[in-house]
Amino acid sequence: MALRSDWSTKACPIARGLDVLGDPWVVLVLREVMLGAHRYDELHRSLGAADNVLSNRLRRLVDAGLLTRQPYGSGARRWEYHLTEAGADALPVLHALAQWGNRHTPAPRGPLRIVHRGCGAEATSADWCDACGVALTPDNVAWEKPSEPGVLRQLQGARG
Amino acid sequence: MALRSDWSTKACPIARGLDVLGDPWVVLVLREVMLGAHRYDELHRSLGAADNVLSNRLRRLVDAGLLTRQPYGSGARRWEYHLTEAGADALPVLHALAQWGNRHTPAPRGPLRIVHRGCGAEATSADWCDACGVALTPDNVAWEKPSEPGVLRQLQGARG
Repeated sequence: MALRSDWSTKACPIARGLDVLGDPWVVLVLREVMLGAHRYDELHRSLGAADNVLSNRLRRLVDAGLLTRQPYGSGARRWEYHLTEAGADALPVLHALAQWGNRHTPAPRGPLRIVHRGCGAEATSADWCDACGVALTPDNVAWEKPSEPGVLRQLQGARG
Repeated sequence: MALRSDWSTKACPIARGLDVLGDPWVVLVLREVMLGAHRYDELHRSLGAADNVLSNRLRRLVDAGLLTRQPYGSGARRWEYHLTEAGADALPVLHALAQWGNRHTPAPRGPLRIVHRGCGAEATSADWCDACGVALTPDNVAWEKPSEPGVLRQLQGARG
């Protein structure tokens, strides 16, 4: 599942992580699936990606074991995508990017706020509720998006 | 500083972060600078990247404010690259990728271990010493790389 060179067998786990997650569209697809967009049409609409870009990234994410694909409905074959445990486990990468972006890039609107639903505290760590010491997962996190101030969007984790 | 489309003005800080950090070579250049490679020739040797790839990523990182560039030596103009505070602040992105890679990809050697030098504990968080509660920065972190078991490599932060 190479993006450029195949880094999947590198000794460094940063390079192996980048082999899957070192692509902007791959990360944004994960963001949308965590926010509850599961069907191809929903993802296409919310991301505004070209069809070939989106279908390529979905195939990569399925092949790399971060998403599963299931048919839904009847007639023409339609697919829903859900996180696996490995996909849900990428949340800290998204959070670390968000926190870097919050701090170091000009924000046309406000920051993305990460809230641990268990205790209600805003997290400043990518992977840990600094208020109560619990590991952050899509199942216990909500985001307040810059485009929806005041609205807490509960994330969705791996399908059990 | 667009990678594909220009995402630098997006409302979502994940997308703005990806505009800079959503490129595999950019992240590996930061890894090498954190490990102490500052001169073009050192980076070229340790990364094995083509000249045009490396010089393009260094220019992006300088333009985006993550690296500074300073001349060294005499004769032909030579450059050293050092982290800025914004560059040092990308450490959690590298750690989150490493931890995902450690957990979810086959490792030809061992994992990358992240050690908080202040207390000596291995960190399981991307940005926080879970043993003593201190934020991880290149100045207080050492890595045990898979390729150098038993050796703790102290990272280098922003030049003061």
